[in-house]
Amino acid sequence: MHRGGKIAITPTVEVADRAALAMAYTPGVARVCSAIADQPELASDYTWAGNTVAVVSDGTAVLGLGDIGPAAALPVMEGKALLFKRFAGIDAVPVCISCTDVDDVVRTVAALAPSFGGINLEDISAPRCFEIEDRLRDMLDIPVFHDDQHGTAIVTLAALRSAARVVGKELRDLRVVVCGAGASGVAVTKILLRAGVGDIAVADSKGLIYRGREGLNPVKEELAKVTNLGGFAGSPESALRGADVFIGLSGSTLREEAVARMAPGAIAFLLSNPDPEIHPDIARRHVAVVATGRSDFPNQINNSLAFPGVFRGAFDARASRVTENMKLAAADAIAALVGDDAEPDYVMPSQFDDRVATAVAAAVAAAARADGVARR
Amino acid sequence: MHRGGKIAITPTVEVADRAALAMAYTPGVARVCSAIADQPELASDYTWAGNTVAVVSDGTAVLGLGDIGPAAALPVMEGKALLFKRFAGIDAVPVCISCTDVDDVVRTVAALAPSFGGINLEDISAPRCFEIEDRLRDMLDIPVFHDDQHGTAIVTLAALRSAARVVGKELRDLRVVVCGAGASGVAVTKILLRAGVGDIAVADSKGLIYRGREGLNPVKEELAKVTNLGGFAGSPESALRGADVFIGLSGSTLREEAVARMAPGAIAFLLSNPDPEIHPDIARRHVAVVATGRSDFPNQINNSLAFPGVFRGAFDARASRVTENMKLAAADAIAALVGDDAEPDYVMPSQFDDRVATAVAAAVAAAARADGVARR
Repeated sequence: MHRGGKIAITPTVEVADRAALAMAYTPGVARVCSAIADQPELASDYTWAGNTVAVVSDGTAVLGLGDIGPAAALPVMEGKALLFKRFAGIDAVPVCISCTDVDDVVRTVAALAPSFGGINLEDISAPRCFEIEDRLRDMLDIPVFHDDQHGTAIVTLAALRSAARVVGKELRDLRVVVCGAGASGVAVTKILLRAGVGDIAVADSKGLIYRGREGLNPVKEELAKVTNLGGFAGSPESALRGADVFIGLSGSTLREEAVARMAPGAIAFLLSNPDPEIHPDIARRHVAVVATGRSDFPNQINNSLAFPGVFRGAFDARASRVTENMKLAAADAIAALVGDDAEPDYVMPSQFDDRVATAVAAAVAAAARADGVARR
Repeated sequence: MHRGGKIAITPTVEVADRAALAMAYTPGVARVCSAIADQPELASDYTWAGNTVAVVSDGTAVLGLGDIGPAAALPVMEGKALLFKRFAGIDAVPVCISCTDVDDVVRTVAALAPSFGGINLEDISAPRCFEIEDRLRDMLDIPVFHDDQHGTAIVTLAALRSAARVVGKELRDLRVVVCGAGASGVAVTKILLRAGVGDIAVADSKGLIYRGREGLNPVKEELAKVTNLGGFAGSPESALRGADVFIGLSGSTLREEAVARMAPGAIAFLLSNPDPEIHPDIARRHVAVVATGRSDFPNQINNSLAFPGVFRGAFDARASRVTENMKLAAADAIAALVGDDAEPDYVMPSQFDDRVATAVAAAVAAAARADGVARR
């Protein structure tokens, strides 16, 4: 399946003779170039850039494999490009870069921007990924979206909305424990807070994050200010007692006893891949809803429900950026497709539900227009 | 023709269900990543990179339009990508970058190398293009090829071989005048000298280049050492008297009187586009062979006869670079297709002659193996 790669370039115009060649290439193409030189915004109409995403990685945090370098990351980026086309008709180009210094990554990606309509950052290690994305968002007037953060955040919020409906709880009443303070843990925490979740305690490899803990990096320091109202310290299990939701994003393990001590009608999102924090069947003995990142259990929470539609919507609106409201709208659109049909084993639509990307795109484009970042 | 661009990404594998998705993307793709992390050379087999060229421009010297910037250059790079696929089955990705400082361009392109099997530099202004290409060739172990230099050089040498055959002259006996000392003028001069042409006088916008002329840049200073044995100075017309070959590459104009003073059986390559240095019909009154860059006159000399086959051959041999012998071999292969059929109005094969890219590729791959730069 992977031999020779998973994508190809195909011409969309025929060049059957000299006349066609003279139109597609020199001298005919010069008129198109001149038009764009005069009116830069025409590039979106008269090149493929308006429908094209660069899927950029430096290979520092690839799947669960870690820092395997740019060449070894390429198969993942190709797979992503495949999904962009399959689910949203977007032309995506894998771009694996051989620099890892934050300044170098930012400079390299910024230099590529004229060739693309959007930048999907992928598998870049934390906390570097936060600064890289922030700086690129500030520099560029096209959508920059780190999928490990925001794709995961969107689908997790979507699943939580459905799961909360199943157990009859409101988001504002939920007490959540998030295991993992890397790219996805931080972004999930932020979007849940923005969506109105009551309280969240976040743990990293050293234990729960609380205000005043020694040696926090700036991103975790910010988190400490707005999370963990209960002031839990130590192992995440201490915060899990009586909690409504567990979200595992760090490859950690979870003991059955800890799950058993959660609140009645609890929710467990066991998102570490390929090995969930605890076997879903065991967790299911103690909680009302279990979801994983895997396709062989019910309730798969997978980014591919989000990123194709997010970029489709951003491109349709020709958005200059992806705002917080666009992400919230994407999550709501996914949850709305489940709607009243939500039940313990159905909190997320299928990845092959054709309605998903379309619904997400429409919601994202509408939010872009509402936020004033749309250019059409 | 140009609306929405001229190329698209297409999946080469089907993702019809969860099982296929799990193989193409996570978790299945992890095995491919791990294999490449262990054995980097597998990237050429298990990603599209082994068949993929980045067509890179900074937009500083686009067609005859000049420094119109990266966004306006994109339609040309797309056209080139179209031709790469059409003529050689190569996946080419337009990469227009927003930096122009030599260090920045080198750093940016070098950082992209893990994603591609080769780098085609395009429409980068001289003399920056020389240093950029030289440095990238030294840094990278994949073919780096500035088409404005070497593509033009290859097709010009091919045409000159056929034209010399038409007029019954040997390359070593030819005295050539080249107008233009930019990317193409320098590269054409170098390849002709390497192929054994007797003497060449090169002119830039200030007149003929000779040893000791004031204010020459380093590239022209090198040229001055090995060209213009007659020591001509001043206007290129002074060197044209009695010359065997005129090659125009600078957008200059040529007076009929000057053409009339060339040697008997002279050759004029009027390669400025879209306006040849003198109307081909007028030149034809005084010389035996006229060629242009245009498709509406006989003897079109166009890079698209060279670059698809050059990269095809380099990829087939998995060459680490494009050597001088590979370029010479490409020119010889093109000239050989004309062979004994050469006549005043037929010194170059048609761009739509399917034999061209195949013959060039075979010759280039063989030369790569002979030069010890092939990896298969």
